[in-house]
Amino acid sequence: MHHEDALQRLKYIEGHIRGIQRMLEDDKYCIDVIRQIQAVQAALNKVSNKILEGHLNACVTTAIRGDDLAERERVVNEITSIFSTANEL
Amino acid sequence: MHHEDALQRLKYIEGHIRGIQRMLEDDKYCIDVIRQIQAVQAALNKVSNKILEGHLNACVTTAIRGDDLAERERVVNEITSIFSTANEL
Amino acid sequence: MHHEDALQRLKYIEGHIRGIQRMLEDDKYCIDVIRQIQAVQAALNKVSNKILEGHLNACVTTAIRGDDLAERERVVNEITSIFSTANEL
Amino acid sequence: MHHEDALQRLKYIEGHIRGIQRMLEDDKYCIDVIRQIQAVQAALNKVSNKILEGHLNACVTTAIRGDDLAERERVVNEITSIFSTANEL
Repeated sequence: MHHEDALQRLKYIEGHIRGIQRMLEDDKYCIDVIRQIQAVQAALNKVSNKILEGHLNACVTTAIRGDDLAERERVVNEITSIFSTANEL
Repeated sequence: MHHEDALQRLKYIEGHIRGIQRMLEDDKYCIDVIRQIQAVQAALNKVSNKILEGHLNACVTTAIRGDDLAERERVVNEITSIFSTANEL
Repeated sequence: MHHEDALQRLKYIEGHIRGIQRMLEDDKYCIDVIRQIQAVQAALNKVSNKILEGHLNACVTTAIRGDDLAERERVVNEITSIFSTANEL
Repeated sequence: MHHEDALQRLKYIEGHIRGIQRMLEDDKYCIDVIRQIQAVQAALNKVSNKILEGHLNACVTTAIRGDDLAERERVVNEITSIFSTANEL
C-alpha cells in the first residue's frame, strides 16, 4: 500500500522532470527552472518519508523483535546511514 | 551551453526515476530504494548549481550593471529566495 | 557514552559560534562568515547522527521488543518525524 | 544593520546550544534533544539568509558594477559555492 502510493508519486515526479526539460528547451527564466527543481526535491523527500515509514513498521519491527543480533544491528545501522545522508542533502 | 548540460542531466535523472519505479514494482528492499532517491536528489542539486552559475554570469550581471534599480533589487531578492529554499530542503 | 561524546561536540560548537560572533563584530567578509555557519551546521548534523544511533540501539530496540503496541507505534512515528525534518533542513 | 541582527540571533543560538548541553547532562529524551538541534539548524539557516542578503546588496553589487573582471568572477563563484554547500547540508 505504501509502495502503491510511492509509485504514483514517482510517476508524477517523472512528468514534472519532463516539464522542467521543456522549460530548458523553451529557454525559460533560470530562477523559475531552479524553483521547479526544488519542488521536485521536496516531492522526493515526501516519497522517502513514506517508504521509511513503511520500512520501520514492517522490516525493522520484524528484525528487532527477532533473535538474530547481527540482523538487528544491520537494520539499525541502515537507518542511521540514511538519516546521515538526509542531513547531507 | 549551461542549459544543454542541464538538459542532459535531467534526461538521465528521468531514467533514474523510472528505474526507482521498477524497484518499487519488483518490491526491492526499502533502504535501497531510499538510497536511490537520495542519489537523484544529489544529482538535482548539481543541476541547480549549474543553472544558478549560468544565471549569475548572465542575467544577474546584466541586471546589476544596468540602471534599473527595481530590476537590480528583483534579481538580488530572487537569489536570496532560492538560497533560503535550498536551506530548507 | 554516546551522550558524553555529543556533549563534547556541543561545547566545541558553542565556542565555534562565539567565534562567528567575533567575526561579525570585526566586520569580517560575509562569505567567510556564511562558510563558518555552514561548518557549524555540518557539525550539528554529526551530533544528531550520534544521538539517533544511541537512541535506536537503546530506547527503540527496547520499545519494539516490548509488548506495548502504542509505545512501539510512538517510537516509530518519532523516527519518521525527525527524518522528515532532517529532509527539510 | 544586517550584522547587528545576525549578531543578536547568534547570541540567542549560543544560549540555545548551552540549553541542549544541559538536556544531555540531565539525560533528557534523545528525540527531544535531536528536535532542539534541528531548531538550532533552522535558526542558523535564517542567519545565513540574512547575511547573504546584505552581501548581495553591498559587496556583490559593488563588484559587479565595477570594472575588475576578475573581481566580478570571484564574487559570482563565491555565491555558487555557498549555494552548492547549502544544498549539501
